[in-house]
Amino acid sequence: MRVFRQTALATVSVVAIATSATADEALREEALDMFSPVPSTIPAMTDNPITPAKIDLGKALFFDPRMSASGVFSCNSCHNLATGGDDNMPTSIGHGWQKGPRNSPTVLNAVFNEAQFWDGRAEDLKAQAKGPVQAGVEMANTPDNVIATLNSMPQYVDWFKASFPEEADPVTFDNFAKAIEAYEATLTTPAPFDAFLNGDDAALDEAQKEGLAIFLDKGCASCHNGVNLGGNGYFPFGLIEKPGADVLPPDDRGRFQVTETADDSYVFRAAPLRNIALTAPYFHSGKVWDLEVAVAIMGTSQLGTELNEEEIDSIVAFLGALTGEVPEVSYPVLPAETSGTPRPTGEVQ
Amino acid sequence: MRVFRQTALATVSVVAIATSATADEALREEALDMFSPVPSTIPAMTDNPITPAKIDLGKALFFDPRMSASGVFSCNSCHNLATGGDDNMPTSIGHGWQKGPRNSPTVLNAVFNEAQFWDGRAEDLKAQAKGPVQAGVEMANTPDNVIATLNSMPQYVDWFKASFPEEADPVTFDNFAKAIEAYEATLTTPAPFDAFLNGDDAALDEAQKEGLAIFLDKGCASCHNGVNLGGNGYFPFGLIEKPGADVLPPDDRGRFQVTETADDSYVFRAAPLRNIALTAPYFHSGKVWDLEVAVAIMGTSQLGTELNEEEIDSIVAFLGALTGEVPEVSYPVLPAETSGTPRPTGEVQ
Repeated sequence: MRVFRQTALATVSVVAIATSATADEALREEALDMFSPVPSTIPAMTDNPITPAKIDLGKALFFDPRMSASGVFSCNSCHNLATGGDDNMPTSIGHGWQKGPRNSPTVLNAVFNEAQFWDGRAEDLKAQAKGPVQAGVEMANTPDNVIATLNSMPQYVDWFKASFPEEADPVTFDNFAKAIEAYEATLTTPAPFDAFLNGDDAALDEAQKEGLAIFLDKGCASCHNGVNLGGNGYFPFGLIEKPGADVLPPDDRGRFQVTETADDSYVFRAAPLRNIALTAPYFHSGKVWDLEVAVAIMGTSQLGTELNEEEIDSIVAFLGALTGEVPEVSYPVLPAETSGTPRPTGEVQ
Repeated sequence: MRVFRQTALATVSVVAIATSATADEALREEALDMFSPVPSTIPAMTDNPITPAKIDLGKALFFDPRMSASGVFSCNSCHNLATGGDDNMPTSIGHGWQKGPRNSPTVLNAVFNEAQFWDGRAEDLKAQAKGPVQAGVEMANTPDNVIATLNSMPQYVDWFKASFPEEADPVTFDNFAKAIEAYEATLTTPAPFDAFLNGDDAALDEAQKEGLAIFLDKGCASCHNGVNLGGNGYFPFGLIEKPGADVLPPDDRGRFQVTETADDSYVFRAAPLRNIALTAPYFHSGKVWDLEVAVAIMGTSQLGTELNEEEIDSIVAFLGALTGEVPEVSYPVLPAETSGTPRPTGEVQ
C-alpha cells in the first residue's frame, strides 16, 4: 500500500513537471516567433570591419570629453554606461546648458536597432555618431575641430593608423564615426530573457513568464519585437488614442520632420525595450518616470486596451528580465593634449 | 701588448660606469632629502579605515552624476581619471554653465597633499569631498538631497551597510565623504621618478636627471617637495616678482580668503607636480597652457631667476618623469533609480 502510494505520487510529480516543461516550451516557441536572443558574437557592421584596435580607439573617443567644443561632454555623458546607457533625464542638458529636444536613448544594444534616433534619421551607428558631436545643443563641435583635436595628439594618430591600416590619412571624421560604431557594437547585454529563449526554463520566474505571455497575447510584440523588442519599425504614438500633450508634445511631430509626409505625423521608432527598467524617464518626451505608467499608456494609446494592475505588474516583471549584463569596461586613459590641441570653449554661438 | 691594451680599455670602461653610478647615487641621495616615492600600499586615512567595500562604494559615488542636482556632473567630470585626474579647462564649467573660480586640481595622488583645494581650506579628502557637491557653481546639490537619492536605491543602502557595518544608519553625508576619500586614496600613480628614487638608475634618462639636478639646484624643491613635489606648504604667488594680472587675477587673494590675515594675500598651496604634463592649463587661474611657460614664470616669480631655454627644457623633461601609471579602473555599473529617487533639476537657484 505504502509502496503504491509513493509510486502514484511520483507519477503525479513527473506529470506536473512534464506539463510545466511543455508550457515553457510552448511559450518559448511563441516567443521565438517574435524575438531573437542577443547573439554571442559582435554583430558585423556594414563597410566597417571590427578589429580590437578599432574597438579600443572607439572606446577612447566615446569617453573623451574633448570631442565636445567645451570639453564638458563625451558620448558617455548622455549615454552613460554606468546608468543603463542613458542619462536618466527627461531630455539631455548640453552645450551652454541648453536642453535637447528628445529623451536620450540607451546606447546599450543600439547596434540591433534598424535605424538610430527616435525618428530613425540615421541609418546606422556610424551615421548617428556624427550627429550629437555637431549638434549645437549637445557637443557643439565641428568635424574640422574634432580632426584638429585628434591630430594634435600623436597617440590618437597612432591609434587611427592601427585601426585603419590601409589608409594613408586615417584621421577623418568618417573614421572617427566608424571607430565609435565598432565600440558601440560591443555594448550588448545578454539578459535572463535571452537565457530563456536559449532554452533555460529556470531563467524567468513565474511572474516574468506570465508577463511574457501577456506581452504576446495583448499585441505589445506587434511593435516591440526582434532582438531589441523594438527599434525596428515606425508607428504613430497614439495609434488608437493620443496621449495628453504632456506625454506627446504637439510641436514634436516625430518622423514627419524626416520624411515630411503627413502619414508620418507623430510617428516614432518603437522604443527598444532592453534594459528599460534602467532607463527612466520614458518616451521621446521623457515625461513619464514610472514604468507601470508607461505600460498603461501604451495599452490605451497603442492597443486600445485598459490593462489592469495585475497585467501591468506582470508585464513590468517580464520587462525586468530584459535587464542584461553590461560588458566590463576598463575606463580608458586618454592621450594628453599638446600645445597644438584646440582650446575648449564654453561659448554659445 | 694587445692584452695590456684590452685591460686598459676595460679599466677605463669600469671607471666610467662607476663614475656614472656614483653620480646617480649622489643625485638620488640629494633627491631623497627632498622627495619620497609613492608608497606601495594605500595610505592610511584619519578616522576612516579603508576596506574593499568602502573603496567600491566610493568609486560608485565618484562616478555617479546623480550626486549633482542636475544629474550632469559627477566627481569624475572635473577630476576625470581618463585625462590626468582633472578636466583640462582653465576653470571648470558647472551647474547652469557657470564657471568655477579656480582651476580644477588633479585627484591623482591628492591623498598625499597636506590639505585640499588651492587655498588648503579642507584638511583632508573627506572634507574636500563635501565641497563641490554643495557648491552652487559646481554640483549644486544639498546633503539632504544626496542622502534622499542614496536612500532611494536599495543597492546603495546595502553598499553603505557593507562599508560601515557597525553603524545602525550608515547612509550619512559624512560616510558619503569617507567612502569617496577611501576611493581617492587608491588613486596613486607610481612614476619613473619613483623607480629612480627606489634605486633604478635607468628609470630616468640623462635629460631627466639633468632636469632633476637643476630642479634641486635652482631651489624649485624648496616649495615643491615631499611625495607630491608640492601640496604640502603655502607660498605667495609672486614671492620675488608678481606675475601679470592675466596669470594672477587681483580679485583672487588665495589663502587670505581662508585665514583673513594680510600675510596670506595671494598665498596658495604649492601645486603638487605629479602628472603635471597631463594637467594643463596651469596655476590656480588656469591661464597658462604651456608647461615651458609655467616653468619660466615660476623662475621669475618665485626664484627671481631667468631660467634659460635649456634649463627649462631639462626641467620639463624631469617633470615628464612624474607622469605615472593610473590604476586600472573598472567602470562601475551604478544602482538604478526607483520611483522614490529625487528628480534631477537643471534649474539655477
